[in-house]
Amino acid sequence: MTRPLQFIVEKSLSDENGVARARAGRLSLAGATGQLQEILTPVFMPVGTVGSVKAVTTAELRRMSAQIILGNTYHLYLRPGHDRVERLGELHRFMNWDGPILTDSGGFQVFSLSALNKIDDDGVTFQSHIDGSSHRFTPELSMAIQKALGSDMVMAFDQCPPYPAKPEEVQLAMRRTLKWAERGLEVPLKSHQARFGIVQGGLYEELRVQSAREITSLPFDAFAIGGLSIGESPELMQKMAYFTAPFLPVDKPRYLMGVGRPEDLVEGVRAGIDMFDCVMPTRNARNGQLFTSQGKINIKNSKYADDPGPLDPECPCETCTQYSRAYLRHLFICREVLSARLNTIHNLTYYVRLMTEMRTAILENRFDDWIKSFYTKSRH
Amino acid sequence: MTRPLQFIVEKSLSDENGVARARAGRLSLAGATGQLQEILTPVFMPVGTVGSVKAVTTAELRRMSAQIILGNTYHLYLRPGHDRVERLGELHRFMNWDGPILTDSGGFQVFSLSALNKIDDDGVTFQSHIDGSSHRFTPELSMAIQKALGSDMVMAFDQCPPYPAKPEEVQLAMRRTLKWAERGLEVPLKSHQARFGIVQGGLYEELRVQSAREITSLPFDAFAIGGLSIGESPELMQKMAYFTAPFLPVDKPRYLMGVGRPEDLVEGVRAGIDMFDCVMPTRNARNGQLFTSQGKINIKNSKYADDPGPLDPECPCETCTQYSRAYLRHLFICREVLSARLNTIHNLTYYVRLMTEMRTAILENRFDDWIKSFYTKSRH
Repeated sequence: MTRPLQFIVEKSLSDENGVARARAGRLSLAGATGQLQEILTPVFMPVGTVGSVKAVTTAELRRMSAQIILGNTYHLYLRPGHDRVERLGELHRFMNWDGPILTDSGGFQVFSLSALNKIDDDGVTFQSHIDGSSHRFTPELSMAIQKALGSDMVMAFDQCPPYPAKPEEVQLAMRRTLKWAERGLEVPLKSHQARFGIVQGGLYEELRVQSAREITSLPFDAFAIGGLSIGESPELMQKMAYFTAPFLPVDKPRYLMGVGRPEDLVEGVRAGIDMFDCVMPTRNARNGQLFTSQGKINIKNSKYADDPGPLDPECPCETCTQYSRAYLRHLFICREVLSARLNTIHNLTYYVRLMTEMRTAILENRFDDWIKSFYTKSRH
Repeated sequence: MTRPLQFIVEKSLSDENGVARARAGRLSLAGATGQLQEILTPVFMPVGTVGSVKAVTTAELRRMSAQIILGNTYHLYLRPGHDRVERLGELHRFMNWDGPILTDSGGFQVFSLSALNKIDDDGVTFQSHIDGSSHRFTPELSMAIQKALGSDMVMAFDQCPPYPAKPEEVQLAMRRTLKWAERGLEVPLKSHQARFGIVQGGLYEELRVQSAREITSLPFDAFAIGGLSIGESPELMQKMAYFTAPFLPVDKPRYLMGVGRPEDLVEGVRAGIDMFDCVMPTRNARNGQLFTSQGKINIKNSKYADDPGPLDPECPCETCTQYSRAYLRHLFICREVLSARLNTIHNLTYYVRLMTEMRTAILENRFDDWIKSFYTKSRH
């Protein structure tokens, strides 16, 4: 295969205006080891922040049919260092995951985690959230880090303006995002690495259109919608994703960054998005917030103290087939490490299955009915 | 089988004075579900304090060939409550472990964990270490709790005097331990539950002999040496275990409570002990202290930051076969949940294999050579 990423839309549904929306696809990657990798979309990517999807092993990720995971450039740059990861055989080998990995650019964490950051046209100077040490990211360094990590999908280094932001601020960030995208494209990557461009534009429709036109004119393998899910309401986020998606090429993967709740994934797929990532299933698991086919559960609730039933009777995961709600509550109350594990296995399984269900419904031309059923059940 | 526990000594070695010492045995249990359970001894029991062996699943315990685990009566009484555990199908089902379980009596934790405790001839009044609430344990309640939990091996409720303690204190504790043992024997258990008597006597040889005579005159299925590993030096502990073991019947299992380090297990087996438990492999794992065939490792040490090799090249566990020392160090430094998991899997595997090696060496009549080799290797 000549390009590191190929994408085939297997089935695409149109909305009431004839716009191509929800689709099922097959995304093929060259693979770090030369072994072709295939991802069925729509897909959710568990977040492996610092070289581990928190609380679970890669063997467990495989068992729950997770297809691809995300690694955070900012975190891995700080600890253990991208050069070190490369020397140890790149990220796949370091963390024992032979499936595809997408790395973000580090930009978002620099803006959201570091105590102080100073953005200029050339890059961002920031302080580490760990020890306050000073660092500087540029588009070139972001590419170099992701190259060293050896991920399969590399994100352009972009500027994500805060929410809310004035149009001038958003426009400035867009201009930088475009320049930085162009500079990043000049940096050679490893031959298996695919490049994603990122559309910004805040909550302004005209800016989203402009950013989409600019970014999609560049030779990226896929495109992402960035700058959402950063504080605006879910309704606004969903509306802007729905607005923006059709401005991205139909023949390339579309990735909605940092989203989100189960209903946000449903609305994202409805809008025509193929890829998602979010810390919600893993983070909420550790806080005892569990997603089930009957809606959300807070396992801490005393009503589960004597409940011998499974967490989610419809779920085939290890947690639901082997343990009771009473036991899961007990582990959570006692702050046992096993609580984080079992809860994470379930929440990620829920997310993976949600995507599989949507894919099947699209392929079987019954996605609208599936959506209705999803909302009916989860409103229990 | 008429009794809940049967024990066959397969092979027994004698010391230079002709005293029967290290032995390999088969311990059969009636089993909570009516399914006969067999344990090959000597055996180490991972500690599942509050209904989970910290950081690992029961599936992982099975994979590492752990044969039996320990549950803590004090902890399970406080949370989630023994009645609740019984309603939820007893401890085996509650925590999804179908192998044998030994429960302690709760006495030791009452003395060591609770803020205030007041011992009288009838029992102990104490405050919960969790919320300060007041509780009272008696020999009868300890049996009732263990009965409700449905463990396979039930420990007598004993008084463990502190170290150091005067002979009068130790004698008083011994008298109570004997009375409490007799009272506990009056309480009916479930038919599959075997009873262990506990020898006390502190660091006084004559009191150990007296306590052993008294306790072994009672109709217990097995006997434990209590009151050691509570602050005295390892040498003293080992010496007292070696002294006491021959005063326990050769045809019943011998259990050295709360011991210990790998070398303590070796010396315990040499003394003629069959069963051990300790939080050391699990607790040290969470603190980054790892046991290997070449001695102890502190995985936090910066010398492992770039080490691509396995934690212990001789270990077949998931951690050693799939991850590098560099990765394990990284996870520990970043306080990832996975660190506790992978470290615990390794340390427990090390302990399980240590016991298996000793058993094989005894059966093959080369235990002395094995001990020499163990000390040579671990002193690296």
